[in-house]
Amino acid sequence: MSRTLLLTLRYDGSRYHGWQVQQNAVTVQEVFQNALGDLLGTRPDLKACSRTDTGVHADMFCISFETDSRIPCGQFPQALNMRLPRDIAVYGCREVEEGFHARYHCLGKRYVYQILNTKQRNPFYEGRALHYRYPLDEKMLHQAAQQYVGQHNFSGFCSYKSTVEDTVRTVSHCSVERKGDLVTFSVQADGFLYNMVRIMVGTLLRIAQGKFRPDCIPVILEKGDRALAGPTAPAEGLYLSRVLYAFDPLEEQRVTNNFKERE
Amino acid sequence: MSRTLLLTLRYDGSRYHGWQVQQNAVTVQEVFQNALGDLLGTRPDLKACSRTDTGVHADMFCISFETDSRIPCGQFPQALNMRLPRDIAVYGCREVEEGFHARYHCLGKRYVYQILNTKQRNPFYEGRALHYRYPLDEKMLHQAAQQYVGQHNFSGFCSYKSTVEDTVRTVSHCSVERKGDLVTFSVQADGFLYNMVRIMVGTLLRIAQGKFRPDCIPVILEKGDRALAGPTAPAEGLYLSRVLYAFDPLEEQRVTNNFKERE
Repeated sequence: MSRTLLLTLRYDGSRYHGWQVQQNAVTVQEVFQNALGDLLGTRPDLKACSRTDTGVHADMFCISFETDSRIPCGQFPQALNMRLPRDIAVYGCREVEEGFHARYHCLGKRYVYQILNTKQRNPFYEGRALHYRYPLDEKMLHQAAQQYVGQHNFSGFCSYKSTVEDTVRTVSHCSVERKGDLVTFSVQADGFLYNMVRIMVGTLLRIAQGKFRPDCIPVILEKGDRALAGPTAPAEGLYLSRVLYAFDPLEEQRVTNNFKERE
Repeated sequence: MSRTLLLTLRYDGSRYHGWQVQQNAVTVQEVFQNALGDLLGTRPDLKACSRTDTGVHADMFCISFETDSRIPCGQFPQALNMRLPRDIAVYGCREVEEGFHARYHCLGKRYVYQILNTKQRNPFYEGRALHYRYPLDEKMLHQAAQQYVGQHNFSGFCSYKSTVEDTVRTVSHCSVERKGDLVTFSVQADGFLYNMVRIMVGTLLRIAQGKFRPDCIPVILEKGDRALAGPTAPAEGLYLSRVLYAFDPLEEQRVTNNFKERE
């Protein structure tokens, strides 16, 4: 009997050309499919919550697939982690309704962008944060970032490469916080356009540098012109940090129970 | 005119066979000497605060040397970081008295040992913490760790390979704390024996497992028998985190002033 499973994993994206399988480049999806194929003996069709770009990390990333395997949910993480390289690890598995799709049923996502704000670089943040040498006023940036909150047409914050037609998104939370030398930008929305978070960060950095006015964001949103926004911030600081569904993807207990009831 | 300088750096030790130069193995010292030699055009004799073992990290590591170079202290970190690989970075430089020796004048050190206490491994702590799957009671371990505090003969917590004769050390602080999934053991002392921190941690883990009694530490200290203590915990969780002198090695302002006064 077939089940639909939802796996939750994290990965350090430094070594990968993003999530989605590509010709001539190693991606997280390819490595993950090989591990799952090795465990199951078949290669199920994977539905992922999102794509990530080259060098972008995920602290939470969800994948759904259908399988005839009878391996209990509680055993999936360990069985897959034995087959995965050290920069990818599964930490959750639960059963979901038939027909569930990790992307179509996703209600929203949160991204985090980490900036190491020190004069000299720090080996422990190498590839894991943007190194920014000049003083950052996190309170001023937090104020400016509030202008992103709400339902807006984000076409000014979308890569030219994108072909998406509907560029309206709703940002429900946006913040800039400092803990010691680490300045963190967080943003939650019902969906994101291509490079949206990195252009939002690039624009805030232009404001920090005094090159853009702190009230420039509503103008860029209104004009919808990518050329008015800041540059795309580097991938290394970006983390997909939360994937929101109508239920908790990490609620393992219920999953295990469901499975036991079936047996 | 010659000056004695004290540099402060940090490094991710994963790729290195410890600090000290060895035949047929890459060490931090070798890589650092090459960078400094390239900057100065000569290879000064380096006095390091300590040695670290293969895979051990340093969040603070101090090196003193004598030089005729007229490069201002404030310029050393950046000039060296341009010449160092991404897993080593200098963040402080100050002038010290002639004859100063980074090891002989060190008053004490603090080490930190990081344990990631989760069921599944986490890519972001790979090589940076010990992964420990089973529950850890940090409050009980903190209590047990207080038995390390004071002046004791630590020969039971010293590798058999050591040839040091005086094995009495004074531990001034010892703690076990949890922040989320991360359990941190910290210990400060006037000096440390070979593998001392890693054996202290290995012993605490035996207590956590119920294999050793929580009050075993005074017995091991008294008998001075390495065979009674726990195993040497893996290198990857260990960080040299503080090096104590009679002054602040990071007090840059005074250094710059001193140098300017001389000029």
